[in-house]
Amino acid sequence: MLNIESYQKSFISYLEGFAVDKEPQNLYEPINYILKLGGKRLRPVLTLMTTEVFGGSAENAMDAALSIEVFHNFSLVHDDIMDDAPLRRGQETVHEKWDLNTGILSGDAMLILAYQLFENYEPTTFRDLAKLFGKTALEVCEGQQYDIDFETRNDVTISEYLKMIEYKTAVLVGAAMKMGAIVAKATVEDQKAIYEFGRLLGIAFQLQDDYLDAFGNPKTFGKQVGGDILEHKKTYLYLKTIALGSAENKLNLQTAMTSTTLSNEDKVTTVKGLFKSSGAAEATQHAVKDYTNKAFDVLNSLNIAEDKKQVLRLFGEQLMNRRV
Amino acid sequence: MLNIESYQKSFISYLEGFAVDKEPQNLYEPINYILKLGGKRLRPVLTLMTTEVFGGSAENAMDAALSIEVFHNFSLVHDDIMDDAPLRRGQETVHEKWDLNTGILSGDAMLILAYQLFENYEPTTFRDLAKLFGKTALEVCEGQQYDIDFETRNDVTISEYLKMIEYKTAVLVGAAMKMGAIVAKATVEDQKAIYEFGRLLGIAFQLQDDYLDAFGNPKTFGKQVGGDILEHKKTYLYLKTIALGSAENKLNLQTAMTSTTLSNEDKVTTVKGLFKSSGAAEATQHAVKDYTNKAFDVLNSLNIAEDKKQVLRLFGEQLMNRRV
Repeated sequence: MLNIESYQKSFISYLEGFAVDKEPQNLYEPINYILKLGGKRLRPVLTLMTTEVFGGSAENAMDAALSIEVFHNFSLVHDDIMDDAPLRRGQETVHEKWDLNTGILSGDAMLILAYQLFENYEPTTFRDLAKLFGKTALEVCEGQQYDIDFETRNDVTISEYLKMIEYKTAVLVGAAMKMGAIVAKATVEDQKAIYEFGRLLGIAFQLQDDYLDAFGNPKTFGKQVGGDILEHKKTYLYLKTIALGSAENKLNLQTAMTSTTLSNEDKVTTVKGLFKSSGAAEATQHAVKDYTNKAFDVLNSLNIAEDKKQVLRLFGEQLMNRRV
Repeated sequence: MLNIESYQKSFISYLEGFAVDKEPQNLYEPINYILKLGGKRLRPVLTLMTTEVFGGSAENAMDAALSIEVFHNFSLVHDDIMDDAPLRRGQETVHEKWDLNTGILSGDAMLILAYQLFENYEPTTFRDLAKLFGKTALEVCEGQQYDIDFETRNDVTISEYLKMIEYKTAVLVGAAMKMGAIVAKATVEDQKAIYEFGRLLGIAFQLQDDYLDAFGNPKTFGKQVGGDILEHKKTYLYLKTIALGSAENKLNLQTAMTSTTLSNEDKVTTVKGLFKSSGAAEATQHAVKDYTNKAFDVLNSLNIAEDKKQVLRLFGEQLMNRRV
């Protein structure tokens, strides 16, 4: 099939069959709730798509794809507690709808359920998937810890920031694709290359998210434009303004970000102006393009048929051309 | 060797080599902290001992034993958050010493690290260990959820309580021993039997813990005697008093447990009197003996040399004869 919408559709129908109908209800109900909240299901779609790109069957990859999605949702449940977030996809977060303990324990169970989804694969595939999963899951935790640490640090470097988003976001994209390659029994070389493609695309995607958070179209972006600015987030735009801007830019940035007198609207407008005048906005767009191009270079080097590459290229382009 | 103290010693030295010296420190420091807080290390000792009982080498089982210990400590870190506990083994709990987010995230990382410890085993052993681990870990979460649910329920039955302690405590004892059998490549039949031995002994151990919490020697018990009574815990003693006691017993129990005028000492004395006069104290001792005997019956049926059985019998007797 090799078509995003049809992968999404078949994944969602598989996901619906997964609903855990087990006791104790107070443990499993929140799991079913968060898994059904929606989302674009991009990570599991990447697993299914990659499996077929390497000649395997998407059906075979459903459990691996589901594992990625369950893990991703585990991380959302625990991150939402840590960020004290009331809403997720416009609905109440688990710890808000239930309570803190439910959020912790249901999250723990999801992490275990994600591992269990590999159990139907034969032993060597099982081990390859579980090893990749463990390494990736630990990196995601490390990324979350760096993100927390950065909140109270004023000396975060660009390279530290890139490592943080790599761990917190990009490695899971790489792993989602590599799992597809593992299920399809692709060569180790191809597994490495597709992971790299996903990782680079994941970094590009997150940098673009930083950019769109300030400069996206408020009508279509989904999140509140300027949200990162109002939360004082040290995004790529912010760090680049510090790195590239004049002394005056920097001073104005700090003043605006921490101002208690400016309205939210004025704060966002002022900071966006500084992102532009310092050259940080342009530098961010360059970085997005740069990581995307690197990803496509890796894709070109892959030892697969041109029409298969085209599928992944199209996916990458759709992902990166969103101007939402 | 087959000697508890020497297993403890070699396990602790292996554990010390495990200290995670990685970035970010804020993620890994709490893990090293909780793992070094001490404890009797009974679960990993059981893994090592069982491996040698089935003719394997304890050295080979170190990673499996460590996985059990890391998982156990993961559950302590998250349970301590849920129970709002300030102390663990006389020291500050992780969420007290650091904060809530650190407790959640370090716990998550420990669950992943516990899985990763199977990675050095060859694929089929890896899968057998990881499958047993996943099943057990999920049951431990379910047991914790039942325990939380029971706090606000007044109709908990004895059989529900037994299922709760089985899941929360006993299955991990069974799994610790079965992992030893898996590493030693024991037959599936022997793996099942040793799991059953551990599970039954684990239930006996927890019931004895309930008993000693009320009737243990305050000088040697370690925990505050009567702690369960003061926390209104629906233990086996409590539930048996409800099941066996006269209408008067039951009324007096409810009155004493919820009294706001009785001193803690008087409350404990009154409730202990009711545990005795209702026949619940004796019934609990019977149940401990009953589960222990069932465990030893399973042990006797095992297809191993008599001197090996003797090692496990001795361990069981030492565990159950504590009058601390």
